[in-house]
Amino acid sequence: MQIRNNGYTLKNCRFIVNYDKILENVNIVIQNGYIKNVGREVEGDEVDCSEYIAIPGLVNAHTHTPMIILRGYYDDAELTEWLKKIWEFEKVFKLNEMNIASELAIMEMLSKGTTAFIDMYFNPEGVKEIAEKYGIRAYAGYTFLNSLFEPHEIDKKQRQLKTSELFKPIVNVHSIYSTSIETLKLAKQIAEETDTWIHIHVSETRSEIYEIKKKYGKFPVELLNELGIVKNAQLVHLGWIANWELRYVNQATHCPTSNMKLATAGFFPFKELMENGVNITIGTDGAASNNSLDMFREMKNAVLLQRHSYWDVGVKAFHAFRAATENGYKLINLKGGRIEEGYIADIVLLKKDKLYPLRKDRILSNIVYYTVGEYVGKVIVNGRIVYDEKVEREFDKRRRELLKLLDEIIS
Amino acid sequence: MQIRNNGYTLKNCRFIVNYDKILENVNIVIQNGYIKNVGREVEGDEVDCSEYIAIPGLVNAHTHTPMIILRGYYDDAELTEWLKKIWEFEKVFKLNEMNIASELAIMEMLSKGTTAFIDMYFNPEGVKEIAEKYGIRAYAGYTFLNSLFEPHEIDKKQRQLKTSELFKPIVNVHSIYSTSIETLKLAKQIAEETDTWIHIHVSETRSEIYEIKKKYGKFPVELLNELGIVKNAQLVHLGWIANWELRYVNQATHCPTSNMKLATAGFFPFKELMENGVNITIGTDGAASNNSLDMFREMKNAVLLQRHSYWDVGVKAFHAFRAATENGYKLINLKGGRIEEGYIADIVLLKKDKLYPLRKDRILSNIVYYTVGEYVGKVIVNGRIVYDEKVEREFDKRRRELLKLLDEIIS
Repeated sequence: MQIRNNGYTLKNCRFIVNYDKILENVNIVIQNGYIKNVGREVEGDEVDCSEYIAIPGLVNAHTHTPMIILRGYYDDAELTEWLKKIWEFEKVFKLNEMNIASELAIMEMLSKGTTAFIDMYFNPEGVKEIAEKYGIRAYAGYTFLNSLFEPHEIDKKQRQLKTSELFKPIVNVHSIYSTSIETLKLAKQIAEETDTWIHIHVSETRSEIYEIKKKYGKFPVELLNELGIVKNAQLVHLGWIANWELRYVNQATHCPTSNMKLATAGFFPFKELMENGVNITIGTDGAASNNSLDMFREMKNAVLLQRHSYWDVGVKAFHAFRAATENGYKLINLKGGRIEEGYIADIVLLKKDKLYPLRKDRILSNIVYYTVGEYVGKVIVNGRIVYDEKVEREFDKRRRELLKLLDEIIS
Repeated sequence: MQIRNNGYTLKNCRFIVNYDKILENVNIVIQNGYIKNVGREVEGDEVDCSEYIAIPGLVNAHTHTPMIILRGYYDDAELTEWLKKIWEFEKVFKLNEMNIASELAIMEMLSKGTTAFIDMYFNPEGVKEIAEKYGIRAYAGYTFLNSLFEPHEIDKKQRQLKTSELFKPIVNVHSIYSTSIETLKLAKQIAEETDTWIHIHVSETRSEIYEIKKKYGKFPVELLNELGIVKNAQLVHLGWIANWELRYVNQATHCPTSNMKLATAGFFPFKELMENGVNITIGTDGAASNNSLDMFREMKNAVLLQRHSYWDVGVKAFHAFRAATENGYKLINLKGGRIEEGYIADIVLLKKDKLYPLRKDRILSNIVYYTVGEYVGKVIVNGRIVYDEKVEREFDKRRRELLKLLDEIIS
């Protein structure tokens, strides 16, 4: 894989697209993993980018990489029934098998413009190793899910995870309904002691709200707030959050496709969360519930679902783009998600000829409403070109090897 | 362009996928535009299809091809406001410009697996010529829209349209609210006299229902029924159809992405229409409101919107696939939409390696929920291979020429 850490220049990018600022025919100078200059300057090697549109890297804020093995499996069912089938499979899913699936998912995400992802599963050591091999940013941890794993076993393993250049451990809690108050408290403690956040599915279905209210006398987000967890948590789904719970939320992740496909109904309150200053991000969820890991499709679906739900066009293309870029980097606490001096050089280059009509006043719209991951030409993470045509050929070869192994696992 | 009209064989297709029947590793013998055999037989030239999945061609049941020129234009607005801006542009949109845009749209649709489309615009002669050049099936006509064109002018031009191998005239009526009772009656008369159907936007928004009720004392579908139009009409959108109007409908087309993007809210009653025996089809709508013309994305969004609206998973992958294939061919009154002996040879070959994990029990799911138009390898219409890698290179060249012209028109 091509690695460039010295200064170099993405020369003459046809467009540079931030959610609030679009530039035409300018250069990006990259040095030591950062954007040193955006403008006319040239430094070091030159990469001709006149055929490309540069956008910030996309952050897939919620996924389950190994579940690519379950893509298309039993997926015409509702969440509760579906989850039962999925958990049956997961009981016999071995660690090395998870890693094979994660590697496939990571190649797929990277090739479609994802530069960082947040993963909830049971193989974070594997994910770390694979992410470092491919040069993508990964945030993962062991997942508290009491029916599958003993919480203290998770606790112990979680504390052994180490941060690296591209990897950071997070504390994954599957949900309130699949753990216990004790486990939630334990998760809080680890998150504080290891300086990270809790990543949890919350208020996804009506039955979850009902169950939690019946058991604890509280709504899910309300309960997390009382436990002192919510301020340091990334709440995923929130389709059924009550309006009076909104004020507790800091970080919210929207997975529109998964919610629609699993018929959870509900309504992630995008506008109200924005008004409350919440940092909204977007995730594809796992390939078993989406079934795509394409963040371009997810940005579009986020706008579509919101428009359909509010009966108005208040949520616009730039909101989805900001959620997938700048907000994504805010969540992972890195100065990224913008192509500007001083920001981390996580950049996606789109093939300009695909996005026609190609005009400054339409480019953002065409990225959100038209583009698919297949229009990605190159991907840069931390200043390194980690994906391009040449890498794609390597991916192709490796994919065939992995799919052979995957097929053996499934059959 | 490669044209094969003698008998030939798609040899050893990895899968053949009909909505209700999936075969593995079989041949398709094609002769004189028809499927002569599906099985072990071999005849004439052989095309190795072991790397491909064969599916019936997709019918885009509602689009406006020239509107590709407006992709990304003013598209964060609601329908009424958006339509005003669009009509402003359309008043100065010249015929030769429309044809340039239609040619781009037709190349785009064909390359993404659409084998037939139903077009509502003002350049059917151009569409006919382009469709014949590219080998795609087109159904188009002049459009009744009283603020833009005199109805009798449309009437006169419409009657001059001639059916050909791949083209058939249809009677386009923009909507009830943009025409008059007189125009609707005229449209009915032409449709009857020229043996075709009426293609019309109906019950798309709340304000439309309100307006029509106020003006005519009837709901839109109810009104069309009283005019004797509805039985021979393809009703597009139906987001706000009343339940007691359902019984009048014969042909209904769902454009989920456009409805969501334009925040029309409402709810195309997929299940109730099915229960009433209505032939449901799927359309992308124009590139200005979608903004993609990819029928794979549209099939997925149809399921997603329905699941979100019904709060259940009653609408499944196969329903969307049937709507886009078999039902599409029923609408255009051809024996197509299935890969079976005696059916028309309109076939799309998908690159099998893209649809992983590749398994018989998951293939339909992966087509509807994961595939994008970019996974199409070859397209066959009426027995001719009209799209493959070689054709794509020609498309690419032609696209550059057309985009240059398009850019000049826009600027």
